[in-house]
Amino acid sequence: MSDSKQLRDYQVDENINGFVLLKQIDTRVTNSGKPYLAITVADRSMEISGMKWDTTENEAAALKVGEVVAISAVRQEYRDKPQLKFFEIRPTTLGEPNNPADYMASGPMKAKEMEEEVNALLFQIVNPTWQRVVRFLLNQYHEQFFTYPAAKSNHHAFAGGLGFHSLSIARLAQSVVKQYPNVDGSLLLASALLHDLGKVIELSGPIATTYTIPGNLIGHIVLIDEQIVLAAQELNLDLFSEDMVVLRHVILAHHGQLEYGSPVRPLIKEANILHQLDELDANIQSFDNALAETNPGEFGAKSWALDNRSIYKPTEK
Amino acid sequence: MSDSKQLRDYQVDENINGFVLLKQIDTRVTNSGKPYLAITVADRSMEISGMKWDTTENEAAALKVGEVVAISAVRQEYRDKPQLKFFEIRPTTLGEPNNPADYMASGPMKAKEMEEEVNALLFQIVNPTWQRVVRFLLNQYHEQFFTYPAAKSNHHAFAGGLGFHSLSIARLAQSVVKQYPNVDGSLLLASALLHDLGKVIELSGPIATTYTIPGNLIGHIVLIDEQIVLAAQELNLDLFSEDMVVLRHVILAHHGQLEYGSPVRPLIKEANILHQLDELDANIQSFDNALAETNPGEFGAKSWALDNRSIYKPTEK
Amino acid sequence: MSDSKQLRDYQVDENINGFVLLKQIDTRVTNSGKPYLAITVADRSMEISGMKWDTTENEAAALKVGEVVAISAVRQEYRDKPQLKFFEIRPTTLGEPNNPADYMASGPMKAKEMEEEVNALLFQIVNPTWQRVVRFLLNQYHEQFFTYPAAKSNHHAFAGGLGFHSLSIARLAQSVVKQYPNVDGSLLLASALLHDLGKVIELSGPIATTYTIPGNLIGHIVLIDEQIVLAAQELNLDLFSEDMVVLRHVILAHHGQLEYGSPVRPLIKEANILHQLDELDANIQSFDNALAETNPGEFGAKSWALDNRSIYKPTEK
Amino acid sequence: MSDSKQLRDYQVDENINGFVLLKQIDTRVTNSGKPYLAITVADRSMEISGMKWDTTENEAAALKVGEVVAISAVRQEYRDKPQLKFFEIRPTTLGEPNNPADYMASGPMKAKEMEEEVNALLFQIVNPTWQRVVRFLLNQYHEQFFTYPAAKSNHHAFAGGLGFHSLSIARLAQSVVKQYPNVDGSLLLASALLHDLGKVIELSGPIATTYTIPGNLIGHIVLIDEQIVLAAQELNLDLFSEDMVVLRHVILAHHGQLEYGSPVRPLIKEANILHQLDELDANIQSFDNALAETNPGEFGAKSWALDNRSIYKPTEK
Amino acid sequence: MSDSKQLRDYQVDENINGFVLLKQIDTRVTNSGKPYLAITVADRSMEISGMKWDTTENEAAALKVGEVVAISAVRQEYRDKPQLKFFEIRPTTLGEPNNPADYMASGPMKAKEMEEEVNALLFQIVNPTWQRVVRFLLNQYHEQFFTYPAAKSNHHAFAGGLGFHSLSIARLAQSVVKQYPNVDGSLLLASALLHDLGKVIELSGPIATTYTIPGNLIGHIVLIDEQIVLAAQELNLDLFSEDMVVLRHVILAHHGQLEYGSPVRPLIKEANILHQLDELDANIQSFDNALAETNPGEFGAKSWALDNRSIYKPTEK
Amino acid sequence: MSDSKQLRDYQVDENINGFVLLKQIDTRVTNSGKPYLAITVADRSMEISGMKWDTTENEAAALKVGEVVAISAVRQEYRDKPQLKFFEIRPTTLGEPNNPADYMASGPMKAKEMEEEVNALLFQIVNPTWQRVVRFLLNQYHEQFFTYPAAKSNHHAFAGGLGFHSLSIARLAQSVVKQYPNVDGSLLLASALLHDLGKVIELSGPIATTYTIPGNLIGHIVLIDEQIVLAAQELNLDLFSEDMVVLRHVILAHHGQLEYGSPVRPLIKEANILHQLDELDANIQSFDNALAETNPGEFGAKSWALDNRSIYKPTEK
Repeated sequence: MSDSKQLRDYQVDENINGFVLLKQIDTRVTNSGKPYLAITVADRSMEISGMKWDTTENEAAALKVGEVVAISAVRQEYRDKPQLKFFEIRPTTLGEPNNPADYMASGPMKAKEMEEEVNALLFQIVNPTWQRVVRFLLNQYHEQFFTYPAAKSNHHAFAGGLGFHSLSIARLAQSVVKQYPNVDGSLLLASALLHDLGKVIELSGPIATTYTIPGNLIGHIVLIDEQIVLAAQELNLDLFSEDMVVLRHVILAHHGQLEYGSPVRPLIKEANILHQLDELDANIQSFDNALAETNPGEFGAKSWALDNRSIYKPTEK
Repeated sequence: MSDSKQLRDYQVDENINGFVLLKQIDTRVTNSGKPYLAITVADRSMEISGMKWDTTENEAAALKVGEVVAISAVRQEYRDKPQLKFFEIRPTTLGEPNNPADYMASGPMKAKEMEEEVNALLFQIVNPTWQRVVRFLLNQYHEQFFTYPAAKSNHHAFAGGLGFHSLSIARLAQSVVKQYPNVDGSLLLASALLHDLGKVIELSGPIATTYTIPGNLIGHIVLIDEQIVLAAQELNLDLFSEDMVVLRHVILAHHGQLEYGSPVRPLIKEANILHQLDELDANIQSFDNALAETNPGEFGAKSWALDNRSIYKPTEK
Repeated sequence: MSDSKQLRDYQVDENINGFVLLKQIDTRVTNSGKPYLAITVADRSMEISGMKWDTTENEAAALKVGEVVAISAVRQEYRDKPQLKFFEIRPTTLGEPNNPADYMASGPMKAKEMEEEVNALLFQIVNPTWQRVVRFLLNQYHEQFFTYPAAKSNHHAFAGGLGFHSLSIARLAQSVVKQYPNVDGSLLLASALLHDLGKVIELSGPIATTYTIPGNLIGHIVLIDEQIVLAAQELNLDLFSEDMVVLRHVILAHHGQLEYGSPVRPLIKEANILHQLDELDANIQSFDNALAETNPGEFGAKSWALDNRSIYKPTEK
Repeated sequence: MSDSKQLRDYQVDENINGFVLLKQIDTRVTNSGKPYLAITVADRSMEISGMKWDTTENEAAALKVGEVVAISAVRQEYRDKPQLKFFEIRPTTLGEPNNPADYMASGPMKAKEMEEEVNALLFQIVNPTWQRVVRFLLNQYHEQFFTYPAAKSNHHAFAGGLGFHSLSIARLAQSVVKQYPNVDGSLLLASALLHDLGKVIELSGPIATTYTIPGNLIGHIVLIDEQIVLAAQELNLDLFSEDMVVLRHVILAHHGQLEYGSPVRPLIKEANILHQLDELDANIQSFDNALAETNPGEFGAKSWALDNRSIYKPTEK
Repeated sequence: MSDSKQLRDYQVDENINGFVLLKQIDTRVTNSGKPYLAITVADRSMEISGMKWDTTENEAAALKVGEVVAISAVRQEYRDKPQLKFFEIRPTTLGEPNNPADYMASGPMKAKEMEEEVNALLFQIVNPTWQRVVRFLLNQYHEQFFTYPAAKSNHHAFAGGLGFHSLSIARLAQSVVKQYPNVDGSLLLASALLHDLGKVIELSGPIATTYTIPGNLIGHIVLIDEQIVLAAQELNLDLFSEDMVVLRHVILAHHGQLEYGSPVRPLIKEANILHQLDELDANIQSFDNALAETNPGEFGAKSWALDNRSIYKPTEK
Repeated sequence: MSDSKQLRDYQVDENINGFVLLKQIDTRVTNSGKPYLAITVADRSMEISGMKWDTTENEAAALKVGEVVAISAVRQEYRDKPQLKFFEIRPTTLGEPNNPADYMASGPMKAKEMEEEVNALLFQIVNPTWQRVVRFLLNQYHEQFFTYPAAKSNHHAFAGGLGFHSLSIARLAQSVVKQYPNVDGSLLLASALLHDLGKVIELSGPIATTYTIPGNLIGHIVLIDEQIVLAAQELNLDLFSEDMVVLRHVILAHHGQLEYGSPVRPLIKEANILHQLDELDANIQSFDNALAETNPGEFGAKSWALDNRSIYKPTEK
């Protein structure tokens, strides 16, 4: 597969010979008892699944999810959805591509660009307590912040999604601060940058993302709260000063409702605004995901991330 | 009452002699059978209630809610809340102030300023169908749009609140359009300006605002939809063209959920954004209302507009 | 297929050669990669699905959903449900049956009979405003009213179901008017006839019924409200007279609860009665549908239209 | 009070001297420590409350709720609601009226009339099992069935309300049976007559109605079910015959939803119909109650029985 | 299959020749039209499903669910779940095992042991009314109480589960009585023993358990209430004595909430305690079921009985 | 007031001269404009409110909530509820009683007794990680644990209620561990002792208890989680070891449902058991509170702590 030709570019019945990222592989058995492989691969352009109808006992065992593999396959269509029929799938050998990052969907910004914008934002956090905590934690989880996705699936589920989502909210926050008097911009920016940082513990990483055990048992909201408390300790900040209590509240409350996992409802204006901007950014991203798979003038499939709505894509802009 | 001295400026036990707007007046009977007056008056600075302990049979009948009255009273305090004890209350006579508008709370912008900003916004609605409908209806309800409140109570319940709330959303919409690609700015602006216009039929007017009968039986969401349909007819626009259907949908869906009175959920990206910006602006206003009555470092009273939350006002900015 | 022998009459293993209505056809691929056809056909007696295991590239393309087709097949049983195994399926040729209406399930009344009963009912609407609106709209959508189904699936999902359902409610309404004093019979009848008329815009038509774009984005409740407003305009009726406001309210409120899509709850007695009669008639129809597929002395399958209840059919009448 | 002059007939400031039914009496203390009586009395026309401002220690003790008393009072108005100011209240003496029934609101039908209609209905229950059970229980609770109210407050809260409500549903049931084929009229009539009969155990009686202990701890739905089971035992009917199981189900399910106190949801068509007719009749009665206290062209007070709706009474009939 | 070797003991690819209990058998058709058998069998160690790929017309008809069958099969694995591929399945012949009870999962206690513990408990019910009712009903349903499961599936779905679950709650009840003063131990024990006894009517029996018609239409809560009422009649106990009303209440309320099928909420302390102990015991059993199928250090499958939670099994004890 | 005579001992009309704890005091104004004091006082036996009808400007200012005061008053009854009419209320002087603790309701156990039982329990926590964390935190908050209430109002709202409630759950836990195999007793005991310890930060203290700012903005569930994290840091325990993650989970999940403020649902068996024992103990206490104010054979007032149920107190034990 040449650099320029991506999975999305192949037509039905066209042959594909090249390298892709292995996302999932299972050995299954047909009704008549024959084993086959169910495979999902991806590159930057899309994710696609399919079958390899004959397989040997050890074929799947030799392949590792999250690594680059070489494939030979043909592009097909099944119930309006693209699929592959695989002829061959094997690990790459010496000299062949082997960097998974080259085959991962990425967000609209490079880590470098995000980092620069975040650095500039830090200067707008004029409250010294909040600035120290944000700097401390962004330093501690620097790499993860710019490479983790913001979710296992749904909105911002791409490498770098966590940083990009946080940055998008910070941008919206700046617009709100400019438009409305009496919004505490330092508090809003500090919490925008930290609110989802617990995901670097909740999720396993950018490739083949799953929930970790602390992720499932504690959840990213409390996980970041704990990190803030430890940072305060490290920085000799008074845990029960108003600044510290308020920052923890804004972040704990960012899911907006108890039933969505926040242990407290937003009781401070900036907590409420953060929650609403988080939802706004996540929804826009979810709509864009759904629209990408919908034809103009039609309704898309029911979207789990949009509360099972089947959204409409207008014909004319 | 001199121009400069407002109701909010009087201290406890201080005498008040001046002109105010009459908001409510009832004749009641004490436990021991004596009639008295329960009165609410207001000026630009605040609304305040109190009693006039002796009254005659016809005193209340001579006074009209929504008009300017002359009062003589003393400022008191009851359970932490300010009240008045009235000695005299009478209609104004020739030569005395009589323009209710001079005593009404108003929003942060003058009608004139809002009008100019709206006029500028209209040019950003590049889709001709939407622009024609918006111009037609803003023209038809021009005066009401800039003088009606956006609610009977709660957020934006001041004269001009409707225009100001619509404008605030339009400003947020512009920030969103700038930040996110592929948002239809024309659609978002057009619907931001029209979404609450049904309130000019739902509410009785800027003074002593109540719900009208069509307001209660039909509601502002369907009332504006009907006006859009009549406008389309007047303008010879095809009611079932995608432009018309989409505009009606975005406005019908702006309460976001069926249980909040929208007959359809947002199925178009811009419908979802409008709903979220509407909620964001309304919530900020509700927080500001609650914060205005809360001391720094304390929790306020439970706020109906904020889902019974008792909000916190941080000490330090 | 002779006139007298319907799909429901065939036994397992019996061969069928005849004409049916094509409801759905899809080309699919077996696990081993071979294409086949998944087909649904129907006549007045039932709807039935099945496979044609060998097919050619263009076979499906030559057939059109909603038209009469000739089939050769055998009746089978799969997991207690009837199915067909198709040997042949082709368009009809000259001289063969080709009227879809001859193969469509129909309600218990003919359009002609319904029309006569409706005409008689119109005279019972003594209020001139309501009578003019009802006459205007039943005239405008005359054909659709008596041929559309009342739903895509569920209750009254047969051709003519819309008219029949409306008529059934009108009959119940007459019983209620007779039994209870002080019920406004004109209002109840007028709204019974109009309440679901928006479905002639919400649904695509009697054959292969789907939701239209305005159906999904606006919904039948608001669609008929808009038509009433336009009719009032046409008839020079005052849109904000009590008669017009009340009629719109009763129809807007007929789903009874906001969460079921009514933008207002019933605030007028007749609105509440209409809602309850609508539900009563729909439920009886849904029970009859479920009972038709249930053996006496047994519980049926879970019924979506009955809130997932699995209903019981008593043995003895 | 002459026979012809009822409480509803007195004007504001008019004196009342006559006999009424005592509904409630409490000794209370004013803010300044003086005891007074809070009294509610009624006759057939209305219920009315008020105060007697001076009282002695034993005055209230000498009066008994549920008995006829002699009063001297004046009719007043307080916050738009009628009230009485009592001058004297005393037990009646020999020769004065003393039959509470003469002062109780009653339904639109006399017990005698209801009884005749019920007797006629019994012949329409053709299933012998159901007929025997209904006859047995209506015989056992004959007097209560025609004199108890159907509720402590809300709909049908008048003496005889139980019988009248049951009869109203039976009438609706007959209309439904006539209109829809395949409805089991015997089952529907039998259960219409029995469905609320548990209220003769749940409630204390027609005067000063309260909930009994079994009423609160078991509830009328299970109380009637138990009576049916005991009746079946007495009549040597097989408790687990389909007839008996079905009858118990229809009655147990008549509140329609678990959260409204039915231990099972309606799984039989007639159970569903009974539930809907029960709701329809109760709602019409609740609307009529609310409308009786609402002026034409206005909205009434929020009605608890109507889920807090504030209903509208149209001007013109 | 030797006594010692149970289904759970076989490895993947190992052959099984022996006797098992037949739980379910269906004839199905492959996509290519060939009939096959879908079979579920069980012994004390586990339940397992699989296919027999060739079958004759009458093979399934000769086999009876709930009986012992002889099988020849091989153990396989499909999507991480164990399955069987059957070569042969036939009824047992003379001299071969034929007692289903030998192949049924059973609880941790034998019927005999449970019976002895229950007998001892009866002496702790010092209130004579309650003791007589409990003795009467446990006598009447003696065998079923110790052999029925407590559910069709979910918690305590093994033979003897009903008695064991009741006993477990009675044990918890004793701990509570010991720890808290003023808990009525007689009432709590009596109702613990009776609370689920209606399941002997609601369920079909210990083998191939299904819901009976009275089970579905009346439910076990009302079914046991009816039996208590009949017992009281038989024992000449006053149905409306406080003892009888209280006992019926405690049992009717044991699901704790109306939406879970109790017609009344717990209004007596012991009713509330019974409800909570019932839930505690059921939840512990459901967790144990889920933990049995989960690897240490991992999350299990979503459990319907635990409200769709995916539970975690810690590594170290 | 002699030591032996408590507030509960006084009869109606009896004079009281003695010392009590001042719980609340407000200056209010009668309808006729005269100021008066609304006062609540308490001793170990009960809390009681009342008025002092004449007061001076500074009288209330001289009195401090939470301190002992001298009163002269008379016991009265108002609407079935006891009240006081105060003649005098003043601060105590030198030599008079002044220890608030002598006038506070206390739980059934002394701090000393609770401490001994807790110390014995600690040895049953065999897991060293959990034991060290529990010892560390009980040491750090030693005094508060045995003197704080478990709530501002509702269940266990007495001094020492926190320790007593925790101990009660630990006792129930021991019964459960004894009855059920495979319950981790160490985990259950450790979390029973810690689960509500966050209340020592959430609440202001044993006297005149209110919520603190961190209490309202963070809540006791997250507050104790943070303390556990800091303790782990102090004790050099690995924050992400299974032991630490599991302990935090069990405590975070102890409210059982997200909507009750737990940020995660119980996913570990012991978490579920802790939640259910917490609810059981709290409910028994709430029932006992309600029963203490209810007459035998009657229903009590609606209890907020019991979800607005009006509970029944049986006559006979």
